[in-house]
Amino acid sequence: MLIRVEDFGVVPDSPEDATLAVYRAIKQCRGIERPTLVFPKGTYRFKPEKAFEKQLFITNHDQRGLHKIAFPLVGMDDLTIDGQGSEFVFYGSIIPFLIENSRNVRLRNMTIDWERPMFEQGEFVRATPESFDIRLSGPRYELNGNRLTVEYDGREEAIWGIHEVDPETGAHAYGSGDRLSWSSFKKLTLEEVGKGIIRFSGKPRHVPKPGSGALMRLGRREHPGIFLKDSSDCRIEDVTVHHAPGMGLVAQRCADISLRGFNVMRRPGAGRWVTATADAVHFTYCRGRIELEHCLFENQLDDPLNVHGIYARIAERLSDDTLLVQLIHDMQVGVEIADPGDDVRFVDNESLLAYAEATVTSVEKMNARYTVISFDRPLPDMVKVGNVLENATWSPDLTIRHCTFRSNRARGLLITTPGKVLVEHNVISAPGAGIKISGDANSWYESGAVRDVVIRNNTFLDCNYCYPDWGNAVIDIDPEIEHPERFSICYHRNIRIEHNEFHTFDSGIVSGHSVDGFVFRHNRIRRSGSFPPNADRIYAIELAASRNADISDNVAEGGSFMALVGTDILNGLKKAKTV
Amino acid sequence: MLIRVEDFGVVPDSPEDATLAVYRAIKQCRGIERPTLVFPKGTYRFKPEKAFEKQLFITNHDQRGLHKIAFPLVGMDDLTIDGQGSEFVFYGSIIPFLIENSRNVRLRNMTIDWERPMFEQGEFVRATPESFDIRLSGPRYELNGNRLTVEYDGREEAIWGIHEVDPETGAHAYGSGDRLSWSSFKKLTLEEVGKGIIRFSGKPRHVPKPGSGALMRLGRREHPGIFLKDSSDCRIEDVTVHHAPGMGLVAQRCADISLRGFNVMRRPGAGRWVTATADAVHFTYCRGRIELEHCLFENQLDDPLNVHGIYARIAERLSDDTLLVQLIHDMQVGVEIADPGDDVRFVDNESLLAYAEATVTSVEKMNARYTVISFDRPLPDMVKVGNVLENATWSPDLTIRHCTFRSNRARGLLITTPGKVLVEHNVISAPGAGIKISGDANSWYESGAVRDVVIRNNTFLDCNYCYPDWGNAVIDIDPEIEHPERFSICYHRNIRIEHNEFHTFDSGIVSGHSVDGFVFRHNRIRRSGSFPPNADRIYAIELAASRNADISDNVAEGGSFMALVGTDILNGLKKAKTV
Repeated sequence: MLIRVEDFGVVPDSPEDATLAVYRAIKQCRGIERPTLVFPKGTYRFKPEKAFEKQLFITNHDQRGLHKIAFPLVGMDDLTIDGQGSEFVFYGSIIPFLIENSRNVRLRNMTIDWERPMFEQGEFVRATPESFDIRLSGPRYELNGNRLTVEYDGREEAIWGIHEVDPETGAHAYGSGDRLSWSSFKKLTLEEVGKGIIRFSGKPRHVPKPGSGALMRLGRREHPGIFLKDSSDCRIEDVTVHHAPGMGLVAQRCADISLRGFNVMRRPGAGRWVTATADAVHFTYCRGRIELEHCLFENQLDDPLNVHGIYARIAERLSDDTLLVQLIHDMQVGVEIADPGDDVRFVDNESLLAYAEATVTSVEKMNARYTVISFDRPLPDMVKVGNVLENATWSPDLTIRHCTFRSNRARGLLITTPGKVLVEHNVISAPGAGIKISGDANSWYESGAVRDVVIRNNTFLDCNYCYPDWGNAVIDIDPEIEHPERFSICYHRNIRIEHNEFHTFDSGIVSGHSVDGFVFRHNRIRRSGSFPPNADRIYAIELAASRNADISDNVAEGGSFMALVGTDILNGLKKAKTV
Repeated sequence: MLIRVEDFGVVPDSPEDATLAVYRAIKQCRGIERPTLVFPKGTYRFKPEKAFEKQLFITNHDQRGLHKIAFPLVGMDDLTIDGQGSEFVFYGSIIPFLIENSRNVRLRNMTIDWERPMFEQGEFVRATPESFDIRLSGPRYELNGNRLTVEYDGREEAIWGIHEVDPETGAHAYGSGDRLSWSSFKKLTLEEVGKGIIRFSGKPRHVPKPGSGALMRLGRREHPGIFLKDSSDCRIEDVTVHHAPGMGLVAQRCADISLRGFNVMRRPGAGRWVTATADAVHFTYCRGRIELEHCLFENQLDDPLNVHGIYARIAERLSDDTLLVQLIHDMQVGVEIADPGDDVRFVDNESLLAYAEATVTSVEKMNARYTVISFDRPLPDMVKVGNVLENATWSPDLTIRHCTFRSNRARGLLITTPGKVLVEHNVISAPGAGIKISGDANSWYESGAVRDVVIRNNTFLDCNYCYPDWGNAVIDIDPEIEHPERFSICYHRNIRIEHNEFHTFDSGIVSGHSVDGFVFRHNRIRRSGSFPPNADRIYAIELAASRNADISDNVAEGGSFMALVGTDILNGLKKAKTV
């Protein structure tokens, strides 16, 4: 049944805040069978003041606490929202879409953008190894000591990082990385040397080129454009996020999510270098199938995609069958670790190897950081404080097909899931690794040893040109195990890389360790010459502490390439293979 | 049935954090008939790290968002917690007791205190009209420009106000008021003139005496010691709060609350000048009976008691029978305004007079500030944006008996409730008004025109010695109506003041306006001579825009006293009466 927003007083292209009227239209959709909420094509504005508010923990974002939400789709089944090509424009701290405890929700035909995006653009007008000058584009800024602030959403926000980018594409400059952000930024001394011109002195770690774009970062990861939580069977189709002060889309404990023609894309004609200020899409503790088809993710300030679980730290053994479990990373706190009935693996935090399993019988979330979990059996003595557990029930299959990833900061696809992974017919370009398969229980606590990854028929374009900031090679397999050669079992398994094209200026194609079952066949390597190579590297493929590799039938333009694969490379047992 | 905390691993007098083990004991109380949770007499420590966490809006406090709670008594009926004389010591940001959606909960025989209270003590060592010096008592402070910070709960907190107090009693100095806090404090220039000695320059609004105590304020109203919400029939008995970083006890939308031997009291021997850093007890939108007997409230940094409702502002008329309603005051946001079935009065924000009524049929809380409310009938046109509404269903009767109130900052009892109020056999001393009966729809938005107040057999000791900061007279009746004489109906009704003793240095006993039915009989006024009188005042009683006053049979030591009562005093129609 169709619900028309205009029946609730919503007027297309009005400068008024549509939030409250749209909320009342959404409310009307409850209790109707298969409702479709339809917007006449137009521009609609959404402000936080009168928006629905809810306490949410959003994985991999900074802001906890209460969030304002324009479209709070909570406990809604079989709902479709069709924008019919409308533009939804948001102001300040408001989440466009929350899909929570819902089933079969579809979003279609709309764009999401912000009136005032959360970054600043300027121009590098002078640079030496000692200092550089940036001409700011906006008239409103303040410099107090080394604190440069601009107005954002009615408050003063400090710039805390700078990137050198191509003023046309917004792509990061060769070798620039994060070398003018965070702690490196803090070491710089700021001075106003002219109206709207700021000098940054103190031997910057990267010397930008005059004429390049000076992209300035501010704020934190406030919230995503679309947040799916505890929902299933949802589809986002022909939806474009031009900006989000955080990620484009986050799914947390969701099942069966399909993104088709979901784009995180620059707004045409706006001259902006940035789309989302963090990842394009991020999936934490999902299951079922995650599918992306015909998506374009460009110019985010972090990776286009990350799929992972969470390793939770064992903080106390409360009894034989009950643990106090702790989320360590500040950006993971509040995420539900498990439900009764879930299967859990206990993992050694040094080897990352699982050594026991149990089924959850009860869960008591004390607070964002601590949860008491009881299990169906007495836990072996090995289960000790400092080890971690991983929810084995929540790991999705992943298909990424016919997508384009380009011009963002950091890496390409981050894949850590034991599910079936297929990455095919994509075009992947990133200043870091094009694909990264990691896993760690000591820093980000992102879990998910892979079991079955197929990467085929993709084109990789000049990846990893900010080496070594964001990767070792085009494909980087680097679970954080300090001494992988000491363990007889590998962390990752069955990674097949076939029929891909690598256009690259660099030698390094694959770098990794702790893989059992590695296939690299029928790939073609083309030399782009776009940049100087990253380092003196002989081998296109370097795999340490790995087993069962098949590297064959590849074609390397301009001559042969070498692969180095060993079960125990670090201790000198090497097996070099020239293809 | 008895539940013993020691069965859950809780050890008396242990330095360990008891929070998690006590939580598990509380959990055990669920599903047991009339459980009593018993602590062996001892000292128990509660830290926030592993405490239960919940989103709460707490009336008249600063901190919204997530709160850690040591005793989360949510949905618990017929529970008793007996400390058997134990001391509960809290650390940092944690609410000791939350009683929510519960019935018949009793707390008995315990003290509540903090390891590190939220204020600082020093000594005035020098003072001129230009500047004064304070010797800090702690070794850990930092002065950065005009920002003086001390460590509190692992963070640096800035001092933002100073009070001159008697170093023995902690009582405020004559004429000191808030004249060294907030904006007045900000005007002072700070300088370190010796190790641990800070000079505050810039013509302070109050010149303290060397040798007096320098009480320094820091932090905000984080949370109360005990928070009751949506609960009924609860009793707090023989419980003492030595400190809370906020109020001693807050009840919000509760019915039938009894406090017997509930004290907010200095810790003997600790040498502290402050107990709670805000009110001792505060009741917002309660109903049924509120009873206080044999309570001692001393040395809080705000009033001992405040009972009131809330005026919510009409923000939009969404339809004939539906309003968007707004909470204005930052410390009231998030409080539920009404439930379906509640009766509501519509009130003119200038006259404060109610002009229409309706019954609530549905409530949709959009966010902390805005709520959509529908009513059972079309609302008259008079109901317009800017007017306010008041929930008529939620107003309690109040009995305060055999209590002592002393040495706090600000006023004594703040009473704004249409219920039956009885204040008898108390000893009341405050640097502001001893009793204040107000109501306003433009600043604090505290509602509740009184209908039946009896104040009898109390002793008032030297109130209002910081005049005019916190009151006009010992009893101050000052609804915030700009032109009360213009309205034929009075805001307050039936205030009887009988058989009280007023020990006072000052002439002013009662000041007020807009009262219909005022009785002041059989009271005795004694001259204390403790301080110089506040102002040249002839009349002991000044009542403007009031009707039906009976002032008779009072005894004034040292001669007669004068009363001035008029329906239209401000326009010159006066009726002076000498008793």
